[in-house]
Amino acid sequence: MTNSHTVSAAFIEQCKKIKGYEEALALVYWDMRTGIPTQGTTQRSNVVGLLSAEIFRLSTEPALIENVTYLEAHHDELEPLVQALVTDISQKTARFAAIPPAEYEAYTVLQSNAEAAWEEARAQNDYSLFQPYLAEIIAYKKKFISYWGEKDTPYDTLLDQFEPGMTVAVLDELFAEVRTAMVDLLKRTQAAEHQPDASVLERPFAKDKQIAFSEEVLQKMGFDFESGRIDDTIHPFAISLNQGDVRITTRYDELNFKTAVLGLIHEGGHAIYEQNIDAQYDGTPLSEGVSMGIHESQSLFYEIILGSSEAFWQDNYARLQHYAQPAFDDVPFDVFYEALNETKPSLIRIEADILTYALHIIIRYEIEKALFNDNLDVAEVQTVWQAKYQEHLGITPANDVEGLLQDIHWAGGDFGYFPSYLLGLLNAAQLEQAMRQTIDIESVIASGNYLPIKNWLTEHVHQYGKTKTPTAIMKNATGASLQPRHLIDFLEKRYTSVYKLK
Amino acid sequence: MTNSHTVSAAFIEQCKKIKGYEEALALVYWDMRTGIPTQGTTQRSNVVGLLSAEIFRLSTEPALIENVTYLEAHHDELEPLVQALVTDISQKTARFAAIPPAEYEAYTVLQSNAEAAWEEARAQNDYSLFQPYLAEIIAYKKKFISYWGEKDTPYDTLLDQFEPGMTVAVLDELFAEVRTAMVDLLKRTQAAEHQPDASVLERPFAKDKQIAFSEEVLQKMGFDFESGRIDDTIHPFAISLNQGDVRITTRYDELNFKTAVLGLIHEGGHAIYEQNIDAQYDGTPLSEGVSMGIHESQSLFYEIILGSSEAFWQDNYARLQHYAQPAFDDVPFDVFYEALNETKPSLIRIEADILTYALHIIIRYEIEKALFNDNLDVAEVQTVWQAKYQEHLGITPANDVEGLLQDIHWAGGDFGYFPSYLLGLLNAAQLEQAMRQTIDIESVIASGNYLPIKNWLTEHVHQYGKTKTPTAIMKNATGASLQPRHLIDFLEKRYTSVYKLK
Repeated sequence: MTNSHTVSAAFIEQCKKIKGYEEALALVYWDMRTGIPTQGTTQRSNVVGLLSAEIFRLSTEPALIENVTYLEAHHDELEPLVQALVTDISQKTARFAAIPPAEYEAYTVLQSNAEAAWEEARAQNDYSLFQPYLAEIIAYKKKFISYWGEKDTPYDTLLDQFEPGMTVAVLDELFAEVRTAMVDLLKRTQAAEHQPDASVLERPFAKDKQIAFSEEVLQKMGFDFESGRIDDTIHPFAISLNQGDVRITTRYDELNFKTAVLGLIHEGGHAIYEQNIDAQYDGTPLSEGVSMGIHESQSLFYEIILGSSEAFWQDNYARLQHYAQPAFDDVPFDVFYEALNETKPSLIRIEADILTYALHIIIRYEIEKALFNDNLDVAEVQTVWQAKYQEHLGITPANDVEGLLQDIHWAGGDFGYFPSYLLGLLNAAQLEQAMRQTIDIESVIASGNYLPIKNWLTEHVHQYGKTKTPTAIMKNATGASLQPRHLIDFLEKRYTSVYKLK
Repeated sequence: MTNSHTVSAAFIEQCKKIKGYEEALALVYWDMRTGIPTQGTTQRSNVVGLLSAEIFRLSTEPALIENVTYLEAHHDELEPLVQALVTDISQKTARFAAIPPAEYEAYTVLQSNAEAAWEEARAQNDYSLFQPYLAEIIAYKKKFISYWGEKDTPYDTLLDQFEPGMTVAVLDELFAEVRTAMVDLLKRTQAAEHQPDASVLERPFAKDKQIAFSEEVLQKMGFDFESGRIDDTIHPFAISLNQGDVRITTRYDELNFKTAVLGLIHEGGHAIYEQNIDAQYDGTPLSEGVSMGIHESQSLFYEIILGSSEAFWQDNYARLQHYAQPAFDDVPFDVFYEALNETKPSLIRIEADILTYALHIIIRYEIEKALFNDNLDVAEVQTVWQAKYQEHLGITPANDVEGLLQDIHWAGGDFGYFPSYLLGLLNAAQLEQAMRQTIDIESVIASGNYLPIKNWLTEHVHQYGKTKTPTAIMKNATGASLQPRHLIDFLEKRYTSVYKLK
């Protein structure tokens, strides 16, 4: 046994230990966001602090760093799994280790206070209550960027943490093309003679029937109920505890089934990704989706490309009518399908349709970039926000809750995260084009057996976990770097059909 | 600030950290026993191992032991809370530290294998598959007893861990008196002319209606739903994560509502104990029930003294009939109440009525004592088990699943635990007698407002958490040491009325 082997074995154990603590922490988060009794949260927050501190300690302890240093120097002798682990852990470790522990702790306290201030500001509908916290969070992040090392621009450093390798230069170009096309397409849908009527969707559909219908769809998608479960929450999410335990949550609105049904299809896409990572990585930090942009490509593939398609509803509308009986008995298929695909400028990102969603994201991207690269003052964000909504979507929020207080991301310090949503959509559309070369997607959906889609995604995306970069995954799967035209073509086609555009 | 203050503060933080890990571990256990997807358990077991190891490490680390040693030497200068913490932690620490870590780890692996072997033996209905594991578990426990130090007898050392201060000498006397009285009372009920008809209880009662009824009862008992929740499980339990998050679980049988309804009243009693410990102990190891015997006294008080009483059903039967409609419409009150209090020899402990339950426990106590104090061979346990069931209950199990494979306790190494169940019953009856001096229990129950009962129990039992010994709690609350005649009188009275004994 060479020394590389011994060090590798010890290093794998260290990685599994970190992952084990992350699993415990994930369970605590899931519990806090699903069923924790209200009186239990204060003490539970201490447990979050305890486990987070231990993950920080384990990720920066000298025994780990020594092993990483040794293994980096013996890269060519290592098993591929160990090589991938070294890459992953050394990045995380470097990120943690660059920050003095006292500052990191002060920052986590600030995060928690900022989130509370954000809640309060929302309750009062008053950005000024949140503004000083936002300023402080940004100041910390700027200091952290200097510790981590500035890439091409300060904001590039943040982008890279959510989407390894992604840069402002690339995003500026991608997003400019998307923005131009979306603004144009949106105008044409608004001018169209034929307009869908989304109000037909607002019919009573009992929660338990929504669950039954959604479970059937998830089953057909290939969500494994022996490796997952569904729970109620306020803000829907998917969370992987381990590969055999990936949980999704949703919120039910009996007068708007889209929330839960399309929400579960979306979260189901995230979950199927995590459930189908190669089993050899289970219990290690490699058993995770590689980036937010790839993760969202999976959830959006299922929600938009599959779950909002004509073929999907041709397969499922009769069943939905049956479960919702008699709510949709008098709604013809076309009217239903078009209503589902209505597009309309709106103020709230998470309620937006997929066309305008892209514009919501671009607005956030432009503001974040200005905050970090052009020192935009937090006092001006409100004005900039209003102006950009007017410019891109033609509407203006009447207050802060409908405006810059709607998302929690900034309170948590998650700058650089928003672009992933649009990258996910771009990735999804490009994956769809690649999939078409071997799979007749519409026929597969019409057959009611969607597994060929899951199998293709598992082969080209899921299985790798964190062992390939997002760029490598997209290149391998589609033969090209990210091209916005796939998304533009996709939306062009869908809305042309729905709005009967010329 | 004196040095005692500094050391106390550091020591409290160490204790809270241990408790924080225990809270994380409790959540993992709760999750594994309620809703974990089947494929998630293997990896989750590693998390259990990880958190348990950290609790072991924290409980034996030199920095903690130094503080304990220092504080023990400065006992009189300490705040009462710190004094109590020192007592509690030093016991746990000594218990952990006595065992060489490698042996402790080997033992935890054995436990887990033994539980799997027990499951398999049950599936095959074959004790011989479990026997070698049982032998090994006992051998380990005997070695541990030698590390911990043998008290009057080896089994005394085990008893003391579940019920501090309890001894074989005391139990032999208590249990002999109970056994004689119960065997006699059982014979008289069997010979009685008037016999209840328990079959009237086997009527359809929908799960959601059982939940609605039980929630009403729990509310009246004082279970705080903002500090707790109810979930489904196979083997019911109560678990405290922290004082504001105490969870109970049950199993529903639509043709036997007793399982869930009386089960929830029982677990609710455990939970009310944990919810009402003085808030100053929250987040520390003192915020727990002091012993199994005191814990069971609370659950059994609610299940037997309150929940199976005539006054309780006079207050609740109409409501139960309403929820179960029309199942019990034709069952008169007396028939219903007597059916609930039927007593009959049976083979399965957890399904036994309260009179025969005492005998089930005594049988286990006698066998455990023989295993540890008289070197009874594991090969003979089967024969001894059969003989004792014949002797005490007049029936003999036809196979191992109905016999010595029915309980998981031995597979987990929990010898010395069983007596707590009967001690709980003895404690409950004695507490009831003491409560009668200031509370007219029947009138309180008839009023439909049970809170005076909870308040009395909180004042005399709950609030103390682990700051008083079980003996001190009983002495304080009842003015006497444990006297079996209270339980004997209680059962005599109840069964005389139900069976119309002369």
